[in-house]
Order: sequence, then structure tokens, then C-alpha cells
Amino acid sequence: MEYFPAPLEKLVEQFAKLPGIGGKSAQRLAFHVLGLSDQDAKAFADAILDAKQSVTCCPVCRNLTAGGLCSICASPKRDAATICVVADARDVAAMERAREYGGSYHVLHGVISPMNHVGPDDLEIKSLVERVSKSGVQEVIMATNPDTEGEATAMYIARLLKPFQVRVTRLAYGIPVGGHLEFADDATLMRALEGRREL
Amino acid sequence: MEYFPAPLEKLVEQFAKLPGIGGKSAQRLAFHVLGLSDQDAKAFADAILDAKQSVTCCPVCRNLTAGGLCSICASPKRDAATICVVADARDVAAMERAREYGGSYHVLHGVISPMNHVGPDDLEIKSLVERVSKSGVQEVIMATNPDTEGEATAMYIARLLKPFQVRVTRLAYGIPVGGHLEFADDATLMRALEGRREL
Repeated sequence: MEYFPAPLEKLVEQFAKLPGIGGKSAQRLAFHVLGLSDQDAKAFADAILDAKQSVTCCPVCRNLTAGGLCSICASPKRDAATICVVADARDVAAMERAREYGGSYHVLHGVISPMNHVGPDDLEIKSLVERVSKSGVQEVIMATNPDTEGEATAMYIARLLKPFQVRVTRLAYGIPVGGHLEFADDATLMRALEGRREL
Repeated sequence: MEYFPAPLEKLVEQFAKLPGIGGKSAQRLAFHVLGLSDQDAKAFADAILDAKQSVTCCPVCRNLTAGGLCSICASPKRDAATICVVADARDVAAMERAREYGGSYHVLHGVISPMNHVGPDDLEIKSLVERVSKSGVQEVIMATNPDTEGEATAMYIARLLKPFQVRVTRLAYGIPVGGHLEFADDATLMRALEGRREL
């Protein structure tokens, strides 16, 4: 495309680099920005720079924070003896939305994935082991996704934590609430049967 | 959501304001930005500010330009005696992609739409009439979209231009190239029949 003025083309290109945004969408977004007030455009640009500059990782749990300890690690109400290990900061948000969990987290920032050249050393696994070895952690809940990579990562970490005498658990598999047996895949049904409980 | 640090929340909100971007997509885009290098994040923010600041309207045709005349109005190769009237700068890009048209444009920046409180005075219609009245324009091609509002806008402008002795034409309606008769709607088929030509 060479039909738009250069600064507009550049903005379209920037939007087109974002995940899930194609050429047409990028154009629509760029035109939307042109239609913003100067103030709103500045707020947008500032939000990008500000998020990039001031969001860092919590020194304890590696969750995202605006500086210092994250709000969960800093809270005296949370149980530091239980650590829920997740792959991503978004998973922390998902767990928090459920309003059920009162412990702390550890964010791995990915899963072990040889296909994508991500090994254990690329993840926050060492910091987890250190954390478990030092403080009085009683339970580590592996809450990586129930897919091949998430599973492998959970198994790997569970093995690493064996020497520390902590309880290592895994989130339950089963039929999702509101789901239908009819539409459940074989693997899920098998796990649901395996994990059946007394009523 | 209050599970992300404030600067990240703000960025998610900014993305969620964009057209067609829902909450989940906004989150994904914001996390993508966090993953960018400082340099790339700055380039993105700069592109927003730069496009907003330096893109203006061509004083002749109201197409978007990075300052001064737009590239089409400035080109000596383009026929200034023919004006193609479009609703939006994106329509100029669409026409240019067809590589068929060698005249100039006039961008209305919208169509008459009483439902959305857009009247003739909110559009670049006055500037078009002025342009036709002054210079030696021979033909005005109405290329607004073939929907109710585009149609009404084309008719309105055609009537305004009556006194100036210029030829006012409308883009042809018909079956799109590669289309199927079977799937064409009644109105399109009717127009295609009306507009039939000798072979």
C-alpha cells in the first residue's frame, strides 16, 4: 500500500504487527486513531510507554507489578505457605477471578517447549525451587494448562521439588461445569472417571 | 479487573476502546506490548503521535496528506478535470488499487445520515461545489457506496451540481466480477439487468 501518507502507513504497519490484527483491521484501527482527539491519542501513546517502563516482575513470585512486591505477595491476608504455579500472569488473573484461592503464586513466564526452544532455564523455575527451599512452603499446586507442554512442565517441576518434602498437587481434570458429557473428548472423560469422588 | 498492575490495566483499557477489540483481545495486545523491546514500544507510541500530528487534509481534495497538497493533487499526470467523489480516504486507496482511474478525487469524510446526525454541512460538500464552480471540471463521478446513505448523498450532490454544466455520473451497479448469479440479491440483479450493455 502506498496510497496513504507516510505517517499513516507507519501507524498501519505498527498495528499490523500486533497479534491477531490483519491488514484491514490495522487500517481501521489507524483511521480510528486519526479520529481521536489530540488528548486521547496522547493518552494512548503514554499508556504504551508507561506500561512498558513501569511494569516489572515481583521479586518473589515473578507476577507483574508496578514496582516492588506485587499486591498478592504484599498482602498479609494471603497464605505464603501455599504456592500456585502458573505459566502466565494472565493465569493469575483467571485464578483470582474465581475468588477461591487464598495462597500465593509463582509465575513461570512460559512452559517447557523444545519445539519453541524454551528450556527450563528460560523459565522462572530456579527462583521457584529457591523459594521452596528457603521458606516454610507446605504445598505447591501445579496449575499449568492441561496440554502436553503444561503437563510436561508440571511433571518436571514436581520432580525437582521432591527433595524438599512439600506436597505437590495438580489442578483436577474433569468435565467443565456447564459442559456436556456428549461433547467431552475421550481424554477428558477418562480423566474425569479416574478422578471420580465419593458423594 | 483489578488483577493487573495499574499501568497495565490502563493499557488494556486503551486497547479495549479501539473498534472491534474486546476485553480479551485488549488483554492479549497489552501483554504483547509488554513483551516488545523498549525501542519497538517507543516506535509504536511515536507512530500514534506522529500520525495524529502530521496527517492533515489536502486543501484541494480533502484526501489525507502528510502536509501540503496530497500526492494525487500534486501529480501533473492526473487529470484535474475529472473528480471522483468518495466518502472516505480508504475509498481513495481502494480506487487507486484498481490502477484504472487517472483523475482526481474529492473526499467527503462521510455520507449524509440523518440517523447519525450527519447533515450536508458536516461533509466536504461545500468545498466540492466551490471546486467545480471555479476550475474547468468536466466530469464528477459519484463513487459513494451503493447503500441508502451513499445513494442519497450522491443524489443530493448531483442536484447541487446541476447548475454548473458538468457531467455527473455514478459508478455502475451489477454482479461483482467472480460473483454468482445464484447468490446475487434481487436489487443487484435488477440493476445489472437495467445496466445491460451491447456485446
